[in-house]
Amino acid sequence: MGEADPAVRDQRLTLPAPLPLDSGQSLAPVEIAYQIYGTLNDARSNAILVCHALTGDQHLASPHPITGKPGWWARMVGPGKPIDTNRFHVICANVIGSCMGSSGPASIAADGKPWAMRFPVITIRDMVRAQVALLDALGIARLHAVVGGSMGGMQALSLAANFPERSAAVLVIASAPRHSAQNIAFHEVGRQAIMADPKWLGGDYYAAGKGPEAGLAVARMAAHITYLSEQGLTEKFGRRLQDRATKTFGFDADFQVESYLRHQGLSFTDRFDANSYLYITRAMDYFDLAEEHGGRLADAFAASTARFCLVSFDTDWLYPTAESRSVVHALNASGAAVSFVELSAPFGHDSFLLDVPALDRVVAGFLGIGT
Amino acid sequence: MGEADPAVRDQRLTLPAPLPLDSGQSLAPVEIAYQIYGTLNDARSNAILVCHALTGDQHLASPHPITGKPGWWARMVGPGKPIDTNRFHVICANVIGSCMGSSGPASIAADGKPWAMRFPVITIRDMVRAQVALLDALGIARLHAVVGGSMGGMQALSLAANFPERSAAVLVIASAPRHSAQNIAFHEVGRQAIMADPKWLGGDYYAAGKGPEAGLAVARMAAHITYLSEQGLTEKFGRRLQDRATKTFGFDADFQVESYLRHQGLSFTDRFDANSYLYITRAMDYFDLAEEHGGRLADAFAASTARFCLVSFDTDWLYPTAESRSVVHALNASGAAVSFVELSAPFGHDSFLLDVPALDRVVAGFLGIGT
Repeated sequence: MGEADPAVRDQRLTLPAPLPLDSGQSLAPVEIAYQIYGTLNDARSNAILVCHALTGDQHLASPHPITGKPGWWARMVGPGKPIDTNRFHVICANVIGSCMGSSGPASIAADGKPWAMRFPVITIRDMVRAQVALLDALGIARLHAVVGGSMGGMQALSLAANFPERSAAVLVIASAPRHSAQNIAFHEVGRQAIMADPKWLGGDYYAAGKGPEAGLAVARMAAHITYLSEQGLTEKFGRRLQDRATKTFGFDADFQVESYLRHQGLSFTDRFDANSYLYITRAMDYFDLAEEHGGRLADAFAASTARFCLVSFDTDWLYPTAESRSVVHALNASGAAVSFVELSAPFGHDSFLLDVPALDRVVAGFLGIGT
Repeated sequence: MGEADPAVRDQRLTLPAPLPLDSGQSLAPVEIAYQIYGTLNDARSNAILVCHALTGDQHLASPHPITGKPGWWARMVGPGKPIDTNRFHVICANVIGSCMGSSGPASIAADGKPWAMRFPVITIRDMVRAQVALLDALGIARLHAVVGGSMGGMQALSLAANFPERSAAVLVIASAPRHSAQNIAFHEVGRQAIMADPKWLGGDYYAAGKGPEAGLAVARMAAHITYLSEQGLTEKFGRRLQDRATKTFGFDADFQVESYLRHQGLSFTDRFDANSYLYITRAMDYFDLAEEHGGRLADAFAASTARFCLVSFDTDWLYPTAESRSVVHALNASGAAVSFVELSAPFGHDSFLLDVPALDRVVAGFLGIGT
C-alpha cells in the first residue's frame, strides 16, 4: 500500500458457472464488466466493493467511455480521497441486467440474438450473487468493506444478509431495506412510459437502430424529479425563464427547470438501454429484505459479524431517514455494531453523489477503522 | 331559499364578446358549459361559484355523463351539505381550455376544424375572465363566495385579486399562489409523455379517432402519485400483490399499486382530451400571482374587501402548507380578513376531494357567515 495509484484497469470476466437466480432460473454465461483501482495487498484484506445505483455503472472514478464525464464517484474515490486508492483496492462491477458490459437484456443470448425480454427477471440478491462470484474469481474471501448508495446500498445490505462472512464492514448511504408503494409507483410510471413507446417493439428494438428513446427520456425525467429535493429545485431553478425575458405563451421549455429536465431525459438515452431500465427497476421494486428473511428485518442480519454504518440525508424524500432508521433498529435488535447519521444537505436523494463534505468525513472515518 | 333542490340544469352559453387573453390574443367565440344547483334568490346575493381543478369539470354534484360516477364534490355540495343548495345558488363552469363543453383545443375553430394546438395558450387569469363573463351574463354582480381546491383555489385567488368587487368571500383549499419548480417539473413530464406519443400528431389527432392515449395515461399516472401521500399509498397498498400469491418474475402489474396506477391512467383517457391536458397544465405552470402584481403578493389583494379562508392539508406535498401560509401572510399584510387552518388528513393533495369531516365543518362555517 501507499504506492501511486495504478492506471485504471478495465476488466471483463466470464463467471465459471451458471448463476442461480431467485426466480428459479439460472443465467449462463454471465459476463461481468468491472473496474479496479488501487492495489490488492498481500493479505488480500484491503478490498472494498463499491456497488452502483440504478443508472450507475463500473466507471466509478475514471471518465465514462460514452459521456467523457468524470466517474460518478470521482469525488469520493481516488488517491487521498475518502475511499483512498492509495490504501484500498477498490472494485466496482456493472450489475447484471445493466448495459455497460455485464450480462443484461442487450447481451447476445445462445441463439445469437439479443436476450431482450427473454432475459430472466433478476433481483437485488441476484446482482449480489454475481458480485460474490466475481469476488470468488478474484480470490477475495473477505472484503474490508462493501459500500453503496441508493440501489448500491440495497446490494450492500443484501450482501451483509446473504453472505455475512464476505465483508467486515457495510456502509449504506441513502438507501432502504425495501421499496415503498410510492417508490414502486414512480418506477411503474417509467416502465409504462418505455413500454408505451411504439419503438419499444416488445423489447426487440436492437436491430431497429433506434430504441424507445422518447419513452426512456420520459422515464428518466420522472425519476430525476424524485432524486432532487423541492428545496434544491427551487434554489437551482425557481421559476426562472430559460434564455428569454418573458413567457412565450407556447409549449417550448420556457422555464429553466423544463429545459434541464428535457436535457436530463435526452442525454440519458445516449448511455442507457431501455430494457435494462425495465429490469433494474423491477429488481428494486422486488427488494424487501425482511420478506426474504421470514418477515423480520432483524433476522436478515442474524449471522452477521460486520460493522455497519448507515447514512441518510434530511432532504431525501425517495429513501427518507425513516427507512435507514428501520435498518438501524433491526441491526440493534440483532446485536450488530452500527453507527447511524442523518446528514443535512440540500440536494435530496442525489446528495450521496454530490458535494457534501460531512459525507466524506463519515466515509473516510468508517473505512479507516481496522486498517 | 329553503325550497327543494331543483333538478340540476345543464347549461351552455356563448359569451357575447371576444375574451381578451393574457397572451395579447383574444378568443372568440367562447362557449361556456356549466351547471347550476339551487335557486338564485331575489336579491341575487346567494350565488357561490365553485372552480374546478385540472382534470375536474362542471359536473360538481351530479353524475358524470361519461363515467356515470357521482359528481366530484357530491359529498360537499347538495341539499343540507356544507355547500348547501337549499340555501345557495351554486354555479360550476368548465374552464376554458378544458374538454367538457367549454371552448378548448378540441372545439371547432372558425375554419370548421378543431383548434388543436392553434388554440391560444391561456392562463389562470384567462379562465377567471371567462368565469366573470359568465357571471355577467347571469346577472350576478357579486358572489356570496368563490370556492376552489387546487387549480380551483388558484382561480379563486385570481378572481379575488383581479376582480375584487365580484366576491364577498374567498375559500381556497389545498392550493398555492404560484407553481413551484417541482410542480412545473412534474407537469413537464406529463406534457413530454403526451407529445412523445406518435399518436399525438402535433395535436392534430382528432380526425384519427384514437389520440395519444398511451402518453396521456403515463402523464396521469405520474401526476396521480403527486396527488397522494406516501403514507396514504402505504396504507392503501403497501407492497401487497395483486390477485396473486407470489411475484411472477415478469412485468405484469404484480403489485396492487401498479395495477391501481395503470387503471387510473387508462380510465382517464376515456374522459379527458390530451391537448386540454397540455393547455391546462401550462396555465397552472404560468400561474404566479405575485408576479402579476409587481412581484409582491400582498399587492395582489390591495383592492380586496372580501373575507378569506385558506385550508391546507398536512400530508399534501404538491401544494404544502407553506404555500397557503404565504398567501395568509400576504393577506395579513394587505389588511384583509383571513382565517387559516391546516387540517390533518392522510390522503395527501386529494384530501380536498375525500372524506375529511373537519373540512366539511370549515366550509360550512365559513360560507354560513353573512347569510
